[in-house]
Amino acid sequence: MLKLNIKKKKSPILESNNNNFENSPYEIVKEDINKVNKFIITKLKSDVPLIPIISEHLLQSGGKRIRPTLTLLFAKLFGYHFGNRHIELASCVELIHMASILHDDVVDESKLRRGKETANNVWGNKSSILVGDYLFSKSFQIMVKDEDFSVMKTIADASQSLAKGEVMQLSLINNLDTSKEKYLKVIEGKTAGLFSAASVLGGIITKQKQATLNYLSLFGNYLGVAFQILDDVLDYDFPSSNFGKKIGDDFKEGKVTLPLLIAYNKSNEKEKLFWKKVIEELNQEKNDLKKALDIITKYNSLSEAKNCAQIYSEKAKEILKKLPQNNINSALCEICDFVLKRNN
Amino acid sequence: MLKLNIKKKKSPILESNNNNFENSPYEIVKEDINKVNKFIITKLKSDVPLIPIISEHLLQSGGKRIRPTLTLLFAKLFGYHFGNRHIELASCVELIHMASILHDDVVDESKLRRGKETANNVWGNKSSILVGDYLFSKSFQIMVKDEDFSVMKTIADASQSLAKGEVMQLSLINNLDTSKEKYLKVIEGKTAGLFSAASVLGGIITKQKQATLNYLSLFGNYLGVAFQILDDVLDYDFPSSNFGKKIGDDFKEGKVTLPLLIAYNKSNEKEKLFWKKVIEELNQEKNDLKKALDIITKYNSLSEAKNCAQIYSEKAKEILKKLPQNNINSALCEICDFVLKRNN
Repeated sequence: MLKLNIKKKKSPILESNNNNFENSPYEIVKEDINKVNKFIITKLKSDVPLIPIISEHLLQSGGKRIRPTLTLLFAKLFGYHFGNRHIELASCVELIHMASILHDDVVDESKLRRGKETANNVWGNKSSILVGDYLFSKSFQIMVKDEDFSVMKTIADASQSLAKGEVMQLSLINNLDTSKEKYLKVIEGKTAGLFSAASVLGGIITKQKQATLNYLSLFGNYLGVAFQILDDVLDYDFPSSNFGKKIGDDFKEGKVTLPLLIAYNKSNEKEKLFWKKVIEELNQEKNDLKKALDIITKYNSLSEAKNCAQIYSEKAKEILKKLPQNNINSALCEICDFVLKRNN
Repeated sequence: MLKLNIKKKKSPILESNNNNFENSPYEIVKEDINKVNKFIITKLKSDVPLIPIISEHLLQSGGKRIRPTLTLLFAKLFGYHFGNRHIELASCVELIHMASILHDDVVDESKLRRGKETANNVWGNKSSILVGDYLFSKSFQIMVKDEDFSVMKTIADASQSLAKGEVMQLSLINNLDTSKEKYLKVIEGKTAGLFSAASVLGGIITKQKQATLNYLSLFGNYLGVAFQILDDVLDYDFPSSNFGKKIGDDFKEGKVTLPLLIAYNKSNEKEKLFWKKVIEELNQEKNDLKKALDIITKYNSLSEAKNCAQIYSEKAKEILKKLPQNNINSALCEICDFVLKRNN
């Protein structure tokens, strides 16, 4: 019989600070993020215990809730102040993100996420695959109930882009011929698409014009790319990464991300042979991660990748200048800085 | 690098008889089913080769296309004769089915489906998980483009029911305490929900009243239950099952299906100990499948399960009596018989 590992304990999700912004963005949406958490938990109540158990495990893993925060902040930026659509649609976005985390962790064979065991590590791959499907379809059910075609198109397109990015990434694994353009295409798909949708939803429910929605889409895209590049940097960044997934996970899988690409393209012949051995052939020995980090450090790959992230973050900020200037706009600006400074 | 195993060969999908009905139902929808295949292939064209490759592998595996056939037949039953919605929505339903097959085969660790290697066996679990997500989101994208809330609700609810049924099934694996009611709930979720939606869609696009839609939903539910029970019977049915998945897959997994449940509940103490060993503890030795088949035969479990399927098939036929009587109705009746007679 499937072991459920049900540990009875008080859920710290609803009241704790799950969000790592220490200042205005979090303060502004704190109450609404708690509502999002509650809404998700209510929607995932089920007579099949595995569903709420795995979902709450995920929620308790203390993600940054950056995607729903975007929906909530943009809704507020444009003066949304009645109804519950911002909460429900922010929840849709988070549910899709949760589903993709469940499947990602199976695909990446991850054992830890934010210092906590991954669901697949506790309940097995099968549960993660099927509960992931459940969360994904639940998100669609909520979205359909909202009865707004633009909302549905936005979420369906983002899910499609996410899935396509993930498949593309899988096709490029162990492939050092990946270009920076292709890498960017992958992360635009797998990460930035949902950031983009999350931002646009805030505009849709406040009935913004298409031109404004285009700005929001672009903002989310830039921010998402910056966010993912930082994520990929943290996978090699010993001093900065304080906890969370283990250092070198991407390396062990032979995933070709920006820090590695930068180092590879500057490498000499001997170093290139090393990369081919460890990444393309996935023939890794005990000290190879250290060697990889040495080459990455030698060529300043992490700084260069961070600079690239910063360019995208700046582009996102440029977009914000075209939108209403108020304290919410400043909070969104802070998020652009936060994605560069974060260490998990 | 991921091996794509691209074999250049002519696609036999578009013109071949993928459908196993040898008479009227297939003849009636033959042309439309080819359109569905073509539509799916067109929608899955992608610059990421893995997506069309895996999808075409699935399409070429020669499924019965029973779900899209239901949509097409019900659309015809109510006189749908212009537009392309029947093709597009039948494709949506088939895409969800294809996505669930990809994930199912990973979860069940299946190596063969209809005598052909499963996608996970050829391209690995990761590809199947992610391409499954892609097909699922593609189906939602097509459905959203249709711009009909009832359609969206129908498909979203069916996906939800499918995912819930799958998780429920996982929770019941290796559990001989499963009741027949729980078993029926699982198969209503994982199979009958999509049969139901497929039928209802034909009614929605021909603007049927709610009472009629309810009949279609019930018809699909009954037919889906009958279909799945037969599926579960075929897993133990040496003489009937001619090809396809290997005999005893459910047994090897410790999946508790109706034939096994019937046998278990009639078993004597010694036999019950055997079932506990092989199903609950999954401690299976070389001759245990044969032993299991002997007990199943001793208690006529397959006939009894088939009788149960027949009751559901008859219930489906009863519903058909309330709908327009014409050659399409007769074809639907034939499908009700077909699900009982099929051997793969």
